[in-house]
Amino acid sequence: MSSTPSFAPLRNDTFLRACLRQATDHTPVWLMRQAGRYLPEYCATRAKAGSFMGLATNVDYATEVTLQPLERYPLDAAILFSDILTVPDAMGLGLSFAQGEGPRFATAVRDEAAVAKLAVPDMDKLRYVFDAVTSIRKALDGRVPLIGFSGSPWTLACYMVEGAGSDDYRLVKTMLYSRPDLMHKILQVNADAVATYLNTQIDAGAQAVMIFDSWGGVLADGAFQQFSLAYTARVLAQLKHTGVDGQVVPRIVFTKGGGLWLEEMGQLDCDVLGLDWTVNLGKARALVGAHKALQGNIDPNVLFAPPAAIEAEVKKVLESFGAPHRDPATQGPTHIFNLGHGISQYTPPEHVAALVQAVHEHSRKMRK
Amino acid sequence: MSSTPSFAPLRNDTFLRACLRQATDHTPVWLMRQAGRYLPEYCATRAKAGSFMGLATNVDYATEVTLQPLERYPLDAAILFSDILTVPDAMGLGLSFAQGEGPRFATAVRDEAAVAKLAVPDMDKLRYVFDAVTSIRKALDGRVPLIGFSGSPWTLACYMVEGAGSDDYRLVKTMLYSRPDLMHKILQVNADAVATYLNTQIDAGAQAVMIFDSWGGVLADGAFQQFSLAYTARVLAQLKHTGVDGQVVPRIVFTKGGGLWLEEMGQLDCDVLGLDWTVNLGKARALVGAHKALQGNIDPNVLFAPPAAIEAEVKKVLESFGAPHRDPATQGPTHIFNLGHGISQYTPPEHVAALVQAVHEHSRKMRK
Repeated sequence: MSSTPSFAPLRNDTFLRACLRQATDHTPVWLMRQAGRYLPEYCATRAKAGSFMGLATNVDYATEVTLQPLERYPLDAAILFSDILTVPDAMGLGLSFAQGEGPRFATAVRDEAAVAKLAVPDMDKLRYVFDAVTSIRKALDGRVPLIGFSGSPWTLACYMVEGAGSDDYRLVKTMLYSRPDLMHKILQVNADAVATYLNTQIDAGAQAVMIFDSWGGVLADGAFQQFSLAYTARVLAQLKHTGVDGQVVPRIVFTKGGGLWLEEMGQLDCDVLGLDWTVNLGKARALVGAHKALQGNIDPNVLFAPPAAIEAEVKKVLESFGAPHRDPATQGPTHIFNLGHGISQYTPPEHVAALVQAVHEHSRKMRK
Repeated sequence: MSSTPSFAPLRNDTFLRACLRQATDHTPVWLMRQAGRYLPEYCATRAKAGSFMGLATNVDYATEVTLQPLERYPLDAAILFSDILTVPDAMGLGLSFAQGEGPRFATAVRDEAAVAKLAVPDMDKLRYVFDAVTSIRKALDGRVPLIGFSGSPWTLACYMVEGAGSDDYRLVKTMLYSRPDLMHKILQVNADAVATYLNTQIDAGAQAVMIFDSWGGVLADGAFQQFSLAYTARVLAQLKHTGVDGQVVPRIVFTKGGGLWLEEMGQLDCDVLGLDWTVNLGKARALVGAHKALQGNIDPNVLFAPPAAIEAEVKKVLESFGAPHRDPATQGPTHIFNLGHGISQYTPPEHVAALVQAVHEHSRKMRK
């Protein structure tokens, strides 16, 4: 990014305020994977692009699909349309998405020689991502803030070693327990690459950044702290604090299945902890609410129920967090509503409207 | 079971003593799925049987494979060779295991009409299980105790509604959130069926019983208590306390991914809580150790590391629990060593020997 881009002033800062534990007049809401296959307009754009990576690497398409859910729903944030595995792809591992399957790497990293070849990739190989960030930010025109993101070092390592998704993590854990030295080497490279990647997204216009530790929860107690948390901390230590327009850029860390390690995650140098649906928000608030905003955590499967049931479940989640603080002069516990995991491709789009409306309406009532 | 079977006296009661929080001179160890595909002799018997259900329904084969791991390793307990889904199969849903795939039901339970047809099955349809229990108990000849088991009401419901395994539990959760009345009906029938099933296993000779709540951890906080825990409690309330030889029959409850609900599980009327590898045994002991023995919880993937690394990880797990109490006159915190989930079919059998030896040796040292 040779020149600093400039952007329209932000009109809805509810999400950013909540990230920084400032009072808001409603609980902001966005949805993980909100630009996705449950939207027919997304499927139409994807069909034009030919493939998932065709969509992610084309700036115009990536911009188009990022904005699609905002046209339908009054969401409080947008998130860059991309994939968590762009970084190892740029390392030369060859990412692809076969029809109906998950991601796959042409080259898996399973021995000393493969590990020795790993290095922080040239960010020029990821220019399509940074160009998309700038393009989306311009297209948003100050409507809501734009979140950039990356996979966590551990989550990237899972895919790099397994070569694809896994249901038992056998290969990556075999390396972890047999050759912890190799695993640490991969994680060091990943952490430094992720930090550079997120900083470049911030320079391109990202207003918040999120680290998806999607597979942290598969680790054993002890191994999680050593092989996931420590490297998330290494990323955070290298991140810029301010964006191109001089605003603070909040950092969000989401470890799926990480509820048991919440106290330790509360020590991370980040602003927001993302939680899945197994966690009780009230208990989480008692543990870390004074230091972190909390993001989450309704079960995405709630969206298959009729609207009245969705509303009831939304209320339960909002009330499990309890009333956010209301003093604009201080910081205090805040909640950002989200799913506990990405939205399902089978979700009826009109049910999402019911959820967003219920969050806004009920959270306003809770502040009265 | 028309006549009460009689059996040889028990020679190794370490497991049963630890279940009842009595002092033992070493930490007992057994492994979930210890009779399984990682053993070549198991694969040979299974080949003779033709299929998984062919193996499970033949009393001689089931006896043979149950005893195979005891011939190799000095394990402190045997567990009935069977499947968690025998009960819904006996309800008429038609269980099968396609080669290389998981279980599948011919009929899934997805609407009011299908739910209305469910009833506690005639235990005669499960006679092959009870006959296997008696046969195994006789073949054990008092060597170690025999554990009977069942899937939990919720875990059975997952398979009954989905019709097979699932990675998102969309169908069963859609029913849960859309038609909680139907879900409660299924769970009531399941709980009463599981209780009858386990009681009949006890009458046939089972010396401990375990409820596998394999999918409790996929539920949201709140839903877990209502749809899994409450029905596990309903099973426990109906269970016999003594076996055919007048001995107390300990009850073990294992919820995979249930670590966040440990305090509530500590209130269950059972003797042992099984834990997966995400839980810190020391913290768990502090929460519930005064009321329950704890079983677990090494990551099965540790078994892919070399023996020296396996030993080191075994020590970590034993030491995370800490020293068990040593006063034979009182009850106190006890630990039963196990994996945090079933053993992988790819495990090298000689690594299991290293694990069992390390548990016995190191736990003896910890008592000195």
